[in-house]
Amino acid sequence: MAIILGIDPGSRITGYGVIRQQGSKFHYLGSGCIRTLGSKSESQVPLAERLRIIHDGVRELIQQFQPTAFVIEQVFYARSGDASLKLGQARGAAIVAAACAGLEVHEYLPRAVKLAVVGTGAADKAQVQHMVAKLLELPANPQADAADALAVALCHGHTAQSLLAMAGAVKGRRGGRWR
Amino acid sequence: MAIILGIDPGSRITGYGVIRQQGSKFHYLGSGCIRTLGSKSESQVPLAERLRIIHDGVRELIQQFQPTAFVIEQVFYARSGDASLKLGQARGAAIVAAACAGLEVHEYLPRAVKLAVVGTGAADKAQVQHMVAKLLELPANPQADAADALAVALCHGHTAQSLLAMAGAVKGRRGGRWR
Repeated sequence: MAIILGIDPGSRITGYGVIRQQGSKFHYLGSGCIRTLGSKSESQVPLAERLRIIHDGVRELIQQFQPTAFVIEQVFYARSGDASLKLGQARGAAIVAAACAGLEVHEYLPRAVKLAVVGTGAADKAQVQHMVAKLLELPANPQADAADALAVALCHGHTAQSLLAMAGAVKGRRGGRWR
Repeated sequence: MAIILGIDPGSRITGYGVIRQQGSKFHYLGSGCIRTLGSKSESQVPLAERLRIIHDGVRELIQQFQPTAFVIEQVFYARSGDASLKLGQARGAAIVAAACAGLEVHEYLPRAVKLAVVGTGAADKAQVQHMVAKLLELPANPQADAADALAVALCHGHTAQSLLAMAGAVKGRRGGRWR
C-alpha cells in the first residue's frame, strides 16, 4: 500500500491532493489549497512569510497523512522570468519540507500527468478536473489547483503500478516463464 | 549590537557571510560556500537533495552564529526562465530556513548593495570582492559568492545604521534641539 501526496505549488495558491493506492485501486484521502495571502494582496504579505506558510503547510500534511511518496510536476520555466522565479521559490519551500521529512521526491512532466489521467498530453484544466473526480469517485470536481495535485499523485501511482507490473513480468521471465 | 547573516543563493553554490556590527564598526565573523554538488554533476544529485543541502546549511549557520538579521539580494528574474526557476528554488530553500528560525528577512536590490559597498551601482564582481576585503580588513579577497554574501550583509548594516542615525536625529529634533 502506498500513500501519495501530490503538490501543485504556487506563490499564491499551492494545491495538494492525497491518495491511497492498493494494487490498481486508488482511494481519495484528501485535497485542498494552502493559501498564502488570505484576503490580503501580494505586497501586504512578505515573501518570507508566504514561503513559510507553504513549507509549514506541506509539513503539516506530511504529519497528518504520513505519505510514502511526494510528487510534484516537473517544470523548467514558467511564462516569464518573474513567474519562473516565484514558482521556483514556492517549489523550493515545498520540496524542502518533503526532503527534510526524509520523503523521496518524484517529478513528472505536465504532459505525462495529463496523459496518465486524461489519456492525452494536451488536455485542458477542465478535463483534468473532470477525470480526477471520475477516477477517485468524487461527488464534484475539485478546485483546479487541488485537481492538478491529485492528478500528479495519480500519475505517480499509475507509473509506480506499471513499473511494479513490469518488474513482476521480468521476475516471471527470469524464472523461465511468464506468469 | 547586530549579527548579520548575508546569503547569495544559487543551485550549485550558495555563498554566505556573517558580520557583527557595533555602531559604525563592522567585524568579520565568517564566510564561505554551501556547495550542493561536491565533485558530482547536476544530473547526479537530485533536486530535492540539493535544496535540502542549502536549507540545512543555512539552518546550521543560524545555529552557529545566532544572527539577528538575515539578508539576501532582491531579484525579479535571472538571465533565462530556466535560471530564474533554479535561482528561485535555491532562494526558497534558504529563505524558509531563516523564516522557520523566526528571523526577519531583508532584501536589497543588487544596485543598492554595490552602491553601499563600492560607491557605484555599476560595480563589477572584482570591485565588490576588493571593497569587501578592505572594509572588513581581510588578508585576501573572499571567493566571489562569499564576497557577494558579505556585501549584502554590509549593505544591511550600513542601511540599518543610517536609519538609526535618522531615528536619532528625529528623536533629537522632537526634543526641541539637534544632538
